[in-house]
Amino acid sequence: MASEKAGGKVWIVPDCFLPAHSTGNLKSHESACVLNIGKKPARLKFTAYFENREPLEGLQAACPPRRTNHIRIGSLKNRRREAIPLGTPFALKIESNVKVVVQHTRLDTSQPALALMTTMAYLAD
Amino acid sequence: MASEKAGGKVWIVPDCFLPAHSTGNLKSHESACVLNIGKKPARLKFTAYFENREPLEGLQAACPPRRTNHIRIGSLKNRRREAIPLGTPFALKIESNVKVVVQHTRLDTSQPALALMTTMAYLAD
Amino acid sequence: MASEKAGGKVWIVPDCFLPAHSTGNLKSHESACVLNIGKKPARLKFTAYFENREPLEGLQAACPPRRTNHIRIGSLKNRRREAIPLGTPFALKIESNVKVVVQHTRLDTSQPALALMTTMAYLAD
Amino acid sequence: MASEKAGGKVWIVPDCFLPAHSTGNLKSHESACVLNIGKKPARLKFTAYFENREPLEGLQAACPPRRTNHIRIGSLKNRRREAIPLGTPFALKIESNVKVVVQHTRLDTSQPALALMTTMAYLAD
Repeated sequence: MASEKAGGKVWIVPDCFLPAHSTGNLKSHESACVLNIGKKPARLKFTAYFENREPLEGLQAACPPRRTNHIRIGSLKNRRREAIPLGTPFALKIESNVKVVVQHTRLDTSQPALALMTTMAYLAD
Repeated sequence: MASEKAGGKVWIVPDCFLPAHSTGNLKSHESACVLNIGKKPARLKFTAYFENREPLEGLQAACPPRRTNHIRIGSLKNRRREAIPLGTPFALKIESNVKVVVQHTRLDTSQPALALMTTMAYLAD
Repeated sequence: MASEKAGGKVWIVPDCFLPAHSTGNLKSHESACVLNIGKKPARLKFTAYFENREPLEGLQAACPPRRTNHIRIGSLKNRRREAIPLGTPFALKIESNVKVVVQHTRLDTSQPALALMTTMAYLAD
Repeated sequence: MASEKAGGKVWIVPDCFLPAHSTGNLKSHESACVLNIGKKPARLKFTAYFENREPLEGLQAACPPRRTNHIRIGSLKNRRREAIPLGTPFALKIESNVKVVVQHTRLDTSQPALALMTTMAYLAD
């Protein structure tokens, strides 16, 4: 397998939500976990879709060649320094200039103890 | 990628269940999270399949263009105002007039603390 | 979409485990959730693969047309009345005579509170 | 279906993390659950990708024919006896000489109670 062939350039995650509350030592968060097994750096562009407003575009991240990046979605910013609000349902489209694989995970500690959920993103190439 | 090409028109989720009990501040529920990145509104038709009775058809929802809708499955109603009962195993078929992406999530607080599970729905186009 | 076209006839779940312990009111279990949206009854044959012994074959279940069946994996039996042991890692192959969709879920209450995980089975047609 | 046709030879899991802490009787861990329904033994080679260092290559495991192996990722070693560190984000590429199916699961007890997440690995053949 040529490593350049692993994955795709457009990934979608319909169920995103950044819980506003946390308990214990672990902070509630969501991650877009990206693997780039190719030889070129991946430039990633996130678009956040909401229920009642226009999409938030141009959220940026990167993943070097032969590296993974577990990107905290709550930390993403665009050039205007806009970020995704907490406690709001949204969805993500993740576009990359090179092929990558994307998995999405939520860690939720809004009630005592810990809940996890994960799924491969939907490949929309 | 033309945004009209993301996703599909028929999605299936075999494991659905609306827990009848909740603890803490978070109410147990299931959501069908839909993303419509296209330019036309999505009209969604849900069919619920059960273990021991005829399917419940015509449950309706919508998702505007360039929006997500995290649809509470327990709130769906058809024209006869019928809804899916709590505490009963069922499965869902979700049909859309335009291409969408569907992810299904259960949040269960029937025992103290919080459990989450999620999966992309199965694309049956 | 012709409803006969939804899904496939061979599904695989590598991570199966029936927890031997439960806490609270919910008993730990795994379910293979099957949806048959077609017009013919589905006859299902499960094969359980283990780490250190021969597979257990011929575990049987069914799913009527236009019905779902959330099959408790711990209740499956073959003609010799053999079942899958608790507390043992295994994997499942699920074969159907007609196309179905299969999702696998574990509910684990071995430690207080509740944990859930789910995934669509892998379609091996 | 010829059993040799089930699955693939290259699988990817972007979100891996071995929690350093555990509570209760269950130790936090991740498993790569492999099913080999074919007739030939599977030799498995794992590559771990990190955020800030070169990949760790040559981690080895096996899965006999008609068997499953729920491989503890924290126990994998290469010929230099190197292993994956705890508490560090990473991603996995799993390569097999014969077709297999791979599912990835994390069990996390870092906070009291139990959290589970699972997904089929991404097939990159």
